[in-house]
Amino acid sequence: MGEFDYIRWIRTRTPTAPGVLVGPGDDCAVLAESKSPCLVTTDMLLEGSHFVLADVGARRVGRKAMAVNLSDIAAMGGKPVAAFVSVALPRGEAKAVGEELDAGMRELADRFEVTIAGGDTNTWRGGLVVSVTLLGEPGPQGPILRRGARPGDWLLVTGPLGGSILGKHLDFTPRVKEGLSLQEHAAIHAMIDISDGLAADAFHICEESGCGLVLFADRIPISDAARGMNDGKPPLDHALGDGEDFELAFAVSAADGARLLQLQPIAGIVLSHAGEFISEEKLFLEAGGTRNRIAPSGFVHAFGPTGRDA
Amino acid sequence: MGEFDYIRWIRTRTPTAPGVLVGPGDDCAVLAESKSPCLVTTDMLLEGSHFVLADVGARRVGRKAMAVNLSDIAAMGGKPVAAFVSVALPRGEAKAVGEELDAGMRELADRFEVTIAGGDTNTWRGGLVVSVTLLGEPGPQGPILRRGARPGDWLLVTGPLGGSILGKHLDFTPRVKEGLSLQEHAAIHAMIDISDGLAADAFHICEESGCGLVLFADRIPISDAARGMNDGKPPLDHALGDGEDFELAFAVSAADGARLLQLQPIAGIVLSHAGEFISEEKLFLEAGGTRNRIAPSGFVHAFGPTGRDA
Repeated sequence: MGEFDYIRWIRTRTPTAPGVLVGPGDDCAVLAESKSPCLVTTDMLLEGSHFVLADVGARRVGRKAMAVNLSDIAAMGGKPVAAFVSVALPRGEAKAVGEELDAGMRELADRFEVTIAGGDTNTWRGGLVVSVTLLGEPGPQGPILRRGARPGDWLLVTGPLGGSILGKHLDFTPRVKEGLSLQEHAAIHAMIDISDGLAADAFHICEESGCGLVLFADRIPISDAARGMNDGKPPLDHALGDGEDFELAFAVSAADGARLLQLQPIAGIVLSHAGEFISEEKLFLEAGGTRNRIAPSGFVHAFGPTGRDA
Repeated sequence: MGEFDYIRWIRTRTPTAPGVLVGPGDDCAVLAESKSPCLVTTDMLLEGSHFVLADVGARRVGRKAMAVNLSDIAAMGGKPVAAFVSVALPRGEAKAVGEELDAGMRELADRFEVTIAGGDTNTWRGGLVVSVTLLGEPGPQGPILRRGARPGDWLLVTGPLGGSILGKHLDFTPRVKEGLSLQEHAAIHAMIDISDGLAADAFHICEESGCGLVLFADRIPISDAARGMNDGKPPLDHALGDGEDFELAFAVSAADGARLLQLQPIAGIVLSHAGEFISEEKLFLEAGGTRNRIAPSGFVHAFGPTGRDA
């Protein structure tokens, strides 16, 4: 599969999208001017580090490469528009891997109305590399950053957490629609997608907002996968510490938070009131009436057996 | 070098640029809204395929990764704005390679006032991978595409060609300033940067424009490097067929072409009148009064010894 043939093939597969004036095939793609700022995110997936190709197959790798970028746009409350895909395909199986990869990416691109507007395709002797850059536009509240949470705000999350390694890390649905829908019902002060783990990502909001957080052990939504890990670690620890659930965690005023909980499900999503922001710039877990400091890793310092069973 | 430390380091090195509302450190970068369309290009460089790291060093790899993308923006007549850099660094030497790579990229980013506004940094067991996505805005004539050349137009090129493998492919200056300056003096009908070779890239213009081209053997600018290749191949063949000179080739009316040649040097660049577009959709080389068809590879079909010496 020569580069030029691949580009021709990609061009036949790229529908004319209103926001894309020039797609693949020229020196640059040209996106239509827009009245709003431009959101840009990029993520690279590497064989052997992020996935084992023989285990998961190229289609799921392609799907995930698109999904993680969509999740970043969702975390800004934005709407994705155009993707740029650079790949290094393993020589010898480039055509088969390239086609599967493309199929996986297009599954989500089509679903979220994203045009694959350009890219760079290579073959080499190394492992599979996929680098996606995704451009989008903000939602009605403008770009929703990590900074903006205030003491007294509630931390809400969009779905159950933990144990994504059992499958969700590949097959999750990026919360693009939810990120947009939420803005119709409440002023979102700060938002992030949970890629490093609830504790770590909520702490990112704290760091950027200059505040702290109390997480409520009995309100953190624990996934069935977290309960099914059977590795001796309590399910709550998985929900706090596991990465790649790609749910949204966001800060709203207490009044908006209470109203959102009454309104739910919103866009089919059940929200959980997982914590409350505080002025002290530290992370705590509250369980059984006791507040203990925890590390952003989700590891609970000085946390007794009772707490662990909470 | 953990990912978070690297991001902090990048943040300290990212100056506030007027067009970048949010730089590295949130889920997405946010670029200011613009009244013009958005140009986007992306290129990936791979160790072992595009460079031998031990031979050229990470700094020149970084420089080239930025330069090839700048050249694509130049080929649209555009102005670069913001770059997004994803890298896979070889484990064990990640810090040293990452810093050198960054230094090479910033050399050109600073020179062309480009902000490195985001990216994704990884380490792995594989070779060095650098993927740069560059966003820009069009120049005064809007995006200059490959389509737009008309029969009778002249093909001009911005510098001598051939033998870039001797060094220019790593150290070339992307023709951003030239691509912008030219628009002040003439209506550019179509433009491309010479990455595949003069014949191949000029033929890309023909394909997109629905026309053909006669190249003038005695007016094609031949570089000293092409003359110094000493591989038994005539210097003209190198000028026609070698890639990675990253000069601009563009189509203008004959009247504009003649005027540009009189005005030159423009922005320090000497222009050459390398060919003329024709309606017959084929590529020819004219030498010693004879017109012969050539392949886009630059290989001269049915071309006698006299022609080769031209």
